[in-house]
This record gives sequence, C-alpha cells and structure tokens, in this order.
Amino acid sequence: MMKIIFLILSVLSAFTTLNAQGHSHKGSMALHYPDIEGYVTLKTDLHQHTVFSDGDVWPTIRVLEALRENLDAISLTEHLEYQPHIDDIPHPDRNRSYYLAMEEAKEHGLLIVHGSEITRSEPVGHSNAIFISDANMLMADDPEIPFEEAKKQNAFVFWNHPAWYAQSPTGNPILSDFQEERIKNGELHGIEVINTFDYAEESLALALKHNLTIMGTSDIHGLIDWDYTEKGMHRPITLVFAKDRSLESMKEALFAGRTVAVFNSLLVGKAAFLIPLIKASVKLIEATYIPDTNVLKVELENISSSDLMFENQMPYTLYSKAPVFEIPAGETVTLQIKTLEKKESISLDLKALGAYTEPKVQPVISWEIKID
Amino acid sequence: MMKIIFLILSVLSAFTTLNAQGHSHKGSMALHYPDIEGYVTLKTDLHQHTVFSDGDVWPTIRVLEALRENLDAISLTEHLEYQPHIDDIPHPDRNRSYYLAMEEAKEHGLLIVHGSEITRSEPVGHSNAIFISDANMLMADDPEIPFEEAKKQNAFVFWNHPAWYAQSPTGNPILSDFQEERIKNGELHGIEVINTFDYAEESLALALKHNLTIMGTSDIHGLIDWDYTEKGMHRPITLVFAKDRSLESMKEALFAGRTVAVFNSLLVGKAAFLIPLIKASVKLIEATYIPDTNVLKVELENISSSDLMFENQMPYTLYSKAPVFEIPAGETVTLQIKTLEKKESISLDLKALGAYTEPKVQPVISWEIKID
Amino acid sequence: MMKIIFLILSVLSAFTTLNAQGHSHKGSMALHYPDIEGYVTLKTDLHQHTVFSDGDVWPTIRVLEALRENLDAISLTEHLEYQPHIDDIPHPDRNRSYYLAMEEAKEHGLLIVHGSEITRSEPVGHSNAIFISDANMLMADDPEIPFEEAKKQNAFVFWNHPAWYAQSPTGNPILSDFQEERIKNGELHGIEVINTFDYAEESLALALKHNLTIMGTSDIHGLIDWDYTEKGMHRPITLVFAKDRSLESMKEALFAGRTVAVFNSLLVGKAAFLIPLIKASVKLIEATYIPDTNVLKVELENISSSDLMFENQMPYTLYSKAPVFEIPAGETVTLQIKTLEKKESISLDLKALGAYTEPKVQPVISWEIKID
Amino acid sequence: MMKIIFLILSVLSAFTTLNAQGHSHKGSMALHYPDIEGYVTLKTDLHQHTVFSDGDVWPTIRVLEALRENLDAISLTEHLEYQPHIDDIPHPDRNRSYYLAMEEAKEHGLLIVHGSEITRSEPVGHSNAIFISDANMLMADDPEIPFEEAKKQNAFVFWNHPAWYAQSPTGNPILSDFQEERIKNGELHGIEVINTFDYAEESLALALKHNLTIMGTSDIHGLIDWDYTEKGMHRPITLVFAKDRSLESMKEALFAGRTVAVFNSLLVGKAAFLIPLIKASVKLIEATYIPDTNVLKVELENISSSDLMFENQMPYTLYSKAPVFEIPAGETVTLQIKTLEKKESISLDLKALGAYTEPKVQPVISWEIKID
Repeated sequence: MMKIIFLILSVLSAFTTLNAQGHSHKGSMALHYPDIEGYVTLKTDLHQHTVFSDGDVWPTIRVLEALRENLDAISLTEHLEYQPHIDDIPHPDRNRSYYLAMEEAKEHGLLIVHGSEITRSEPVGHSNAIFISDANMLMADDPEIPFEEAKKQNAFVFWNHPAWYAQSPTGNPILSDFQEERIKNGELHGIEVINTFDYAEESLALALKHNLTIMGTSDIHGLIDWDYTEKGMHRPITLVFAKDRSLESMKEALFAGRTVAVFNSLLVGKAAFLIPLIKASVKLIEATYIPDTNVLKVELENISSSDLMFENQMPYTLYSKAPVFEIPAGETVTLQIKTLEKKESISLDLKALGAYTEPKVQPVISWEIKID
Repeated sequence: MMKIIFLILSVLSAFTTLNAQGHSHKGSMALHYPDIEGYVTLKTDLHQHTVFSDGDVWPTIRVLEALRENLDAISLTEHLEYQPHIDDIPHPDRNRSYYLAMEEAKEHGLLIVHGSEITRSEPVGHSNAIFISDANMLMADDPEIPFEEAKKQNAFVFWNHPAWYAQSPTGNPILSDFQEERIKNGELHGIEVINTFDYAEESLALALKHNLTIMGTSDIHGLIDWDYTEKGMHRPITLVFAKDRSLESMKEALFAGRTVAVFNSLLVGKAAFLIPLIKASVKLIEATYIPDTNVLKVELENISSSDLMFENQMPYTLYSKAPVFEIPAGETVTLQIKTLEKKESISLDLKALGAYTEPKVQPVISWEIKID
Repeated sequence: MMKIIFLILSVLSAFTTLNAQGHSHKGSMALHYPDIEGYVTLKTDLHQHTVFSDGDVWPTIRVLEALRENLDAISLTEHLEYQPHIDDIPHPDRNRSYYLAMEEAKEHGLLIVHGSEITRSEPVGHSNAIFISDANMLMADDPEIPFEEAKKQNAFVFWNHPAWYAQSPTGNPILSDFQEERIKNGELHGIEVINTFDYAEESLALALKHNLTIMGTSDIHGLIDWDYTEKGMHRPITLVFAKDRSLESMKEALFAGRTVAVFNSLLVGKAAFLIPLIKASVKLIEATYIPDTNVLKVELENISSSDLMFENQMPYTLYSKAPVFEIPAGETVTLQIKTLEKKESISLDLKALGAYTEPKVQPVISWEIKID
Repeated sequence: MMKIIFLILSVLSAFTTLNAQGHSHKGSMALHYPDIEGYVTLKTDLHQHTVFSDGDVWPTIRVLEALRENLDAISLTEHLEYQPHIDDIPHPDRNRSYYLAMEEAKEHGLLIVHGSEITRSEPVGHSNAIFISDANMLMADDPEIPFEEAKKQNAFVFWNHPAWYAQSPTGNPILSDFQEERIKNGELHGIEVINTFDYAEESLALALKHNLTIMGTSDIHGLIDWDYTEKGMHRPITLVFAKDRSLESMKEALFAGRTVAVFNSLLVGKAAFLIPLIKASVKLIEATYIPDTNVLKVELENISSSDLMFENQMPYTLYSKAPVFEIPAGETVTLQIKTLEKKESISLDLKALGAYTEPKVQPVISWEIKID
C-alpha cells in the first residue's frame, strides 16, 4: 500500500543517476551516432578554415579538434579568392592546407577530404568543392571555370550558407540563375541547411525541390572550443551513410544524398535516412508490465549524442511523463505506458520534435515492442 | 545547550552556498514564478507527510525544505487512518504536525495550511482536506463523515493521485459514485493532475469536466533532496493566483480554481491562468533589426524556474534556431526572425510545448512586440 | 626537439582528465578506504541522533544516509537525558531507535551498533556508550551509574566533543576528576578528536596521554546532505581496523585503539595505523625513467576518498611539481623525480600534510619504489 | 564581408557565458591579483609562440586568450633560429608576429611586449629578449651577437626553462660559462623558475645567487584551453610590480627584479614581494569573539586567483580547522582561534605552504588583527 515503494524506487534511481552522470555523453566531447541498416554512419565536418585562408589556426589544430569530437572526416576548405593572410602566407600551392592536415592525421585514422571554397559575391555566392584533386586548377576570373574544373576533378560541390543575411538581407536563400544552371549542369550537388548556428528551413525546401544533398557544417574560423564546446554545444556536422569507412564510399554516399545534418538536438534529413537514424539511436532495453497493473514499463536508451525530444503519438497515455519528453544523449529513460489491457506487443509511436524531414514536418518514429 | 545551534548555522551556510553558486535559476533550488495581472502567484505544496503519519522526517524538516525551494505555503497532510508509527508516536491530537510546523515557520514567513489526508481504499480513495480547523473531528468509521466535517470546517478538499496504479491498475482515474456525490454536495473541490512524478491527462480531463481545481503536489514522504533535487528536478507544486499573500486569499483562489500545476518544465492549468503565466514568464528585453537586413533580433528572458520549450507559429521563419527551441529557466535567448520586410510591430506567436490547457492541447502564446 | 611533444602529451592528458571525471571519488558520495596489513578497514559513524532524542529524522533515514556514503557501521546514540520530543514520542523503551535501524538495515549489510548518549553538564559531560545491550538500564540520577552499567554491559564508552566551546568556553578540553576516575575504572575508553566540523589538537593530546581510542563522528542531528554533502564535504568518520567485518571484531578493535579519525582531507590517528593507512591509500602504478634522462616518472594513484596533500622529503627535487602537492581522492598523479643518476630503487619519502599522529606532528611516509 | 563577424560575436558571447557562470574565481578564467604597497600588479605571460615560429595559432588567438585570462601584458617570442613553418611563412621581417598582435590588441588595452627567442643548443641555450625594437637585428651566426644586440636595444633578457630535461638530462639547470659571461656583461637579467608545468627549485637557487629576475611563463605552443583551462588550471604567469600600468614601468620593474612567478596555487618570488603579495591577497572581513567564549572568529577573504594553503604558526590552536587549511581563490573562510583569554589584538601568523622565497623555504605571513 502506501507510498513507501516510491521512496525506495527514488533512492535507487538517485544512485543510478549519480553513476550515470560520469558516462553521460553530455559531459564528453566525443560524438557518437549509430550505424543504420546497410550503412556505416560517418561523422563529418566538411567546411572549415585555417590560417591558409581567413582562419586563425594552423591545420594541425583542426585535426586535433576533430579527434576530440570523434569525427570520422573533415575538410579544410580554404577560400580560393579570399586570402587576408597572403602577405605572410603567400600560399602559391593552394593544396598546402590539405597536405599539412594529411600529415597530422595519418597516424590517427581521421579521413581528410581535399576541398576548397569558391568564394564570390552574389549571384555566384560561396560553394565548397570537395574530393578535388588540385585546388590550384579552380582559380580563375570567370566564375564558371571553378565549377567546370571541379566537375572534371569529379568533385562533390555544395552551396554554402544560402540563408546568410550578409549575402541575402532577408535571411532567405535566393537561388540565382547561375546556381540553377550549375545544378542543371551537374556542377552543384549539395546545400548547407545548417551552417554555424543557423538552420534555414528555406534551404531545406531548396534541397528537397532540387534534390540536393543536405549538409551541416561548422564553417569554423576560430576555435571549436570557444564557439561551441564552452557553450555546452557541439559543432554542426553532416552524418554520411556510407557503404564503408573510406573516402570513396563517403563520396558515393554524398552524391547519392545519404546524409543527415545534425546540430546538437536538431536533426535534418530526408525521411529515408533520418527515420532509421533516430530508430537506431533509441535502443529498447526492456519491456515488462508493472506487477498487478496494465501499466507497461519500457526502458529506452538514447545511444546518440543528440538529446532527443519526443511527443507521444500512441493511442495510450503515459504514466509519470508528460506527452512531450526528452531522452538525453547517452541516457536511459523509462516510459510507463497505460495500455489499458495486457498486450503482447505494441507499436511505440513517437514524433521526434527536434527532427525535420521537410520544413516544419517532424517524423513519427515507430518501434515494435515485444513484451517480455 | 545541545547542538541545535549547529543545525541552524549549517542550514544558514547551506543557503549562503546556494546563493553564491546559483545566480542561474538552474543551479539554484529557489523557485520563482511571476505574478499575473490582478493576482499574486503563490508557490505551494499542499500534500506532504512527516513521521506523524508515514513520512520519515520531523515537521521542521518540511519547513526548511520549503524555505530552500522558496515556497510560499505548505500543508502537512498526515493520513488520518494510516499511522504506521503509532506505537512510537501515539498522536492523540491529530493537529500536532500542524502545530510543530507552525512553530518552526513563524519567523520565516512561510504560510502553513492546516490539513489532513482522508485515507480509504476504493471507492472512497485518498483525499486531502486543507484549511481545516481540527483534524481530530475528521476521524470516523463512516467515510461520509470526514467529508461532511471538512465542509463544516469550510475546508478545501481535493482528490489525491487519481491515476495511481496501486489503486487503479490501468493507471486511469475512475470517478466513483461516492466521489461524484461528494462533488455534487460541494465536498470535493480539486483534483491532483500531478502527484510525485506523475502527470495524468485523464485527471486533467476530469478536472475540466467536473470543474475541479487543478492541483500538483509532491506527496513527499522521504527527502525532497533525494527524490527531486539531486536528480536535477524540483518537486511538483501548485501555483495559486491569489488576491494577496495570505491564507484567506489563497483559500479563496483555490475554491475559485485559479491554479496551475507545475512540475519542472511541465505546466498544466486552465487557459485563463496558464496563458497569462507563460506570457508573464517571458520578458521582452529588446527588439531591433540587424543592420542592413530584414532580420529582427528579439531578446527574450525566461524569468520563471521552468525551462520553456516553444514551437514557432508565426508566418515567419527563424534564423539561427530550429522551429522548436528552449528558453531555459532564468536565461535569455535571442530569436532572429525573418520578417522579410521591416515591420513596426509583430505578434510573436509560440506554442508552449510543455504546457497543457486540455489533454494534448498546448496553448499558443502571443506577445505583441514593438520594434525599437 | 622543441616543445611539440608537450602539446601531444597535454592533449592526451586532457582526454584522460575528461574520462576520469565521472569516476572521480570527488563526485561520488561513496567513501572508500583500503584495508591495511592484517586488518579490514571499517568506515563508521558512531555518534548520531534521530527524532528519538533531538534529531530531525526517523531512524530509517540514518540507515539510508549511511548506505549512500558506503559506511560499514553506524550507531544511533540518542540522548538518555535530553528528550525534547518526549511529549510526542514518550519513548518508554530507550532501545526503540536501535530496533528501527536494525529493521531497516537488515537487508543491506550495514552494521548497527547499539548505543546511547549519556548527557550531563560539566564535569560529567557527554559520553557515548556503544555496544550496549539495554539502554534503559543506563538511566539513573547518579551520574556514576550509567558508566558502571555500561561497563557491566561490556560497552565501549567515549567522551564526546571535549573541546566544544558551549561546554568549555576556551574551546579546550578539560579532563575532570570525574572523567579521570572513569578512565581509571576502565569505564571510559575513547575520545572524539573530531566532532562535526571540529578537530581539536588538545583532544588528540589527551587521547595519547591517557591511551584513549581516537574517534571522529558526525554527531548529526539534521541531514547529512545539508550539513556536509552539498558543501562538498563528507561527514567525519572513524576508520576501525578490525580482524573481520563483524560487530565483535569492530568492538575488539575499538578497545584495542585501532582507529583513524577522518574528516575529508584530515586524518588523525596513532602512527601505527595512520602510516599504514596512507601507505595503502597510495598505489604505485609504474616507475620508469624518461628516455635519455635521469628523471624518474612515478605514477601514483590515491585509492582513498581523502584528498592527500604531501611535501617532498627526498634528497631529490621534483620536475613539474612544487615540493608541496596534492593527489586528489581517486585520482592518479605522476611525479617526475630528479634522481641525478639512474637508480634501481628509491625510497619515496613524503610528509602527509593533512595527517597527524600527535598535535602538529605529521608523519613521513616511505614507499620503496623498484624501478622497471 | 567574410565571416569574421561570427568570430567576434561568438567570442563576445563566450565572455558573457563565462561571466554568468563564474562569480567564483574558480569557475572563471579571469585572473585577479591585488596591488601591493607602492606598486601596480601586472599579470604577464612573456614567453609564447604562434605560427610565426613553431606555434599552432595566428597571433590574434594569443591576444584573445590573454583577454580571457585578464592578463595585462604578453609577448610573442618567436624562435629566431627555429622556423619549422618557414616554407609556408617565409617571415622575412621577424617583427610580423608582434605587429599582428599589436593590431588585434589595440582596442583592448592589452600591453604587447616586443620580443624574440634566441634559440641555440647548449651551452648557449634558449633565452627570451623582450622590449626589443627590431627582431631582425638579433639574427646572426655568432651566438654572442644577439645578446649584444639585445643589450643595444635595451632589451630585458631571461634564460628559458633552465631545468628542461631535453637540454639538461638530469632536469637540473647548468649555468654555462657562456651564460655566466652574459650575466657579467649585463646581457642576461632574468631566469624562468616556472616554465609550462615545471617549477625548478634549482632555477630559483640560481636566480637568488646571481640576482636574476624570477620569471614564470607558459611557453605556449598549442592552445591555452587544452593545455591548462580544461584541466582546471591557469597558465604560469609573472606578476610584475610596476610603478604604473605601462610598458616602460613594466620594463623598469623587470630590471629591478620586482616579480613573483605564479602557477595556480604555487607562488615563487623574493620575500620582499611575495610576502606583501600574499598579505594583500587575504583580506580581513571581521574579527569578533563568539559570545560567552574565548574563541575568536576571524573571517578572511582570498581576493587572489590562487588557492592559498596555510599552516597555523600561532601559539593558539584552531577550532573547526586543522592546522593546515586552504582558503580557495575568491572565497571567504572563517578561522576560530582559541586565544584562551580575550585579546584586543593578535598577530595572525600563517606559513604559506604553496609559496617559496628560497628552495624549500616558505614564508610566514603575519596580519595584525584588531578585534572589534
């Protein structure tokens, strides 16, 4: 009877909480996301700068930062046309930044993607060409040349920060004729829907309309620690769903559009990849009825590094949780589901509130739960 | 003599420590909620136990706990019929717990509400009678007597944990004929929609259907610290919107149904009170356009102790924030709203995702923003 | 050459630090101290109060608090003569507190020592009799009776807070004729050198002079969390070096004087026990020379829950550490010792600055280090 | 254009975050040390590297790091002879690093000291020449030239990391004939007793023997955050006691030897400056007797950023504190001193355990306390 049981449960769970704290993904810098059916999930940040364009650090620091956050791949995409340090760093070979990162990374297993940023004012705008073979060849007065050359080098090219208000004063991306032609020519394949702190729904709409690969990048110039870590955040990244952990597979996956852009608790991607990602991120630990009740306890662990916010979409209500609830990164949460009668299995249907497959559209994820 | 001095010194220094650490509401134990138009907002926990029924502490601890959380009022609602410590504490005067709390509270300004829990098995169930004058008079074999007597004493009576699965194995509240009659007779006036960790949508439905006052309580038996604080939570409370900070006004407000039940980021109440509460909780600091853009920066401060989760409902999208975003308790957040053209004022329309005016119904809150 | 090596080392150690944080004893409430040669180390708090005298909680809370701090044994030593709650808790059987603790503890393996506090004004003062068989028999007007009776029950008796300024306005313990006679009669066996937050060197001097067992206790009346935990402290405890983990062995060890009183980083005891305790608390992980140098790296782990402060006493100086340095509880520290020439073994001699074997006397601890 | 705006915004908001968190000195990065009688206390780090020698960051980062730690002055002392990045940064004008730091610092009030590192193998070793006018003039094959030239430029020159085991395999500094001659010629004026994590007592001995100015520096190559901050440490600094806050006064003070080297809780300096520094760091808040006792309560605040460890040297013992105790940086501690009889004033005599005026010699600091 009475509520003494609650005391015991809560003391127990207090201990659990204490033990869990140290293991919480929150405290750690290392990012973790699960693989999905058929693919390895690669954590990438493919838009970064160093002293070789307008960044503030030597390329080695970018490698060390990436290792601290457990990334699989990075690209140092120096501006081809914007070189504020050129008096000190004449930089005649525009591949230097890549070579220096490669040397630092070689014993660490971090993948370095060879890239450069094509940097023009509107209507050309900024784009990153990655998986290039020679950055020097992308330099030319005619803005069409770098895109043509990137295509010759079989590079994957994506449009940077389309919604940046310094370029588009409304903060909305405007696809120029120039860019539309690049898409038609097969010279522009992706688009940043998240850049630095900014997610733009309009960029997502463009990605879907023009079938562009969805990208998220840090565009870091200073220090990851100062811009993100010490504010309790991780940098934006692109999860790439590749056939294996290699540069070739990563490139194939980018061309095939198999990505989810992630910025802390925000996840943006096509349903075909975002839904399996969230499904794999939440693992069922146990499902049993509370003795003498029709209340089903379902223990769920979020093995990803994103805090996941859900809204109950089941025909059943929850005991001890509001319909909107969070499973923090790396933590375990127990739902108590009022199934009204004993079931052998249920479909756990939750809307992922921080996830978007289209502007304002959040996916409902369903887990089939067999009850022990 | 004795060492009571040490206790006082150490409690004082505990407060000092807390204040020194906790300028952010998050770190601090002290709860803060703003007043709303026409009413003072009282923070109350009106369902608690001590060693005088089945709790684990002397009444003084309940007073000290309440002061640490900055509550305005508490009630020690000892079970009339469940007295597991009766061999050690014969407790002939069932008002003792109240008297002891009164004595401890008197120099602190904490309001003590005289209460008792009427504790029967189904179909009578558990109910708290508060604002009573003599608990002894509520003891009787016939379950109708305590309700009649409470009414004679002009007490406010509410149904406890209607969804508790130990009493209702489905976890759903079942209003018995006995209880329905109590409502008709004006002997039952409120209902807990939040008890301990449990919010029950079905209890909210009953509150709205039968016009019962919406209550949230801790029902604490052990220590607030172990059950809530060290897990990063606050206890559930009832915010009472009273004409002034007095027991009489509080009672009037409870009878009038002017409450919101709060449990951390969850807020449940009638729209007439919940909407003004959230509106008052978020203060506009500044609204200006970013130079040379049509992007409006709106700086908002959450002065409440609840983390508030919102979803954008405006015709405009946000720069640098997903449509779903949080304003943590006590913190300031800047929205960047893409109004597309310069406006002189806008309506900031946000759905409060952690707030419920009806089962599954979250209110949209609108702030009129004049732009500087 | 150059200092690039330092960067790599420091990044590596940054990761170590991050991983270690969660496991750090600092964050955890659970106390750990190693066994010493020939004895099991029992963590005990043998002076505590509940509502059965002038404390604020039911005995069950004391059991739960002890389990949270990983104690091996506690005693609830209610005042025999000071009973402020007697109107509510008539307490005719003065063993009730003990019985209630026993019941709560029985499935947890916590040892409960039967005790009572003999509470008189000066010159009798306060003393705890523990390992009694019946508290009721200790009640008498004549102050000699309880001591005689305690002896009859084969109890271990210790003098409480001898330096408490409420009893001794200078804050210095004054051994009365009454107490001296108790010692002569074999009726007083121990003395608190640490009580609540107070360590008194004069009490240590008395312990050594009269061969009394050295005790440290919390004398808790309120909540351990409020008085200690939330200030970043642990309660004072007595480490008892017993032949095995049982009440009988513990009693034998107390009579034999095999104890160390501990209050966070302060450790007070006879050299015969304090030195082996600290020696066992610091484990050698590895000792090797840094290549191409005569600088010896010695990695040491503090497996105790006390931060240990040391001062180098070797003929060698340290690289990368001041002569005074700390090994925090649960952490590993690397000393770099300039042995000037390569050695096969050295004696690591450190003065333990927070440890006292006599007033103002800190022991030098020596670890024989074989070099790999 | 470009995204430099983001950097500025995010650095600014990083500071905001820090201030919001960090009212305790512990949490905050900003260093604070009090002025001493007759002098302003300048916080300096006069040995640092950037990409212009073998460091990993652009000079602007060094300025931002210094501002975050609230330093008054820094020097970027690039190696003249060690230039691993020379292929990318030809660096024909060896003053570039200084110019770039000056430009970044100019609106922030941070003092930039023009310096360079003379980098040779033994017996010349490494030395920093600061307050130079032209680094280019210090380059020459003959090792005597840079010292002569530095003297011509009226530079202050100090010996770097004399105890570094890569140069001296015993980890002990060996003063070469070359260096001894430099001292005689007035071409070498200071010596690092703390470099990176290393304090060398032998270097302090040399400083005292040859009347060299005592220096502490970070010698940072990577990131201050990774090497120090995220391990809970501050970088080593030199406190310079100058007549006012200007480069000229700072230089005069360095030549006059008015410094204390500081690394977290370690302070090393001549007694004439170290003692007044610690004396000024601990402020008396209040001194009163506890009513009805002879126990004097003395409230002390440590206004410095160093945790200060003390050992009681008074003829009186302490109540509620061991003889060895800490006053953490920025915190207030209350001593309870058993003066045995009521006094009108006492001398509070404490040995500062983390402070050294000579190898192994810790100063006793005395504060005259008038009792209210």
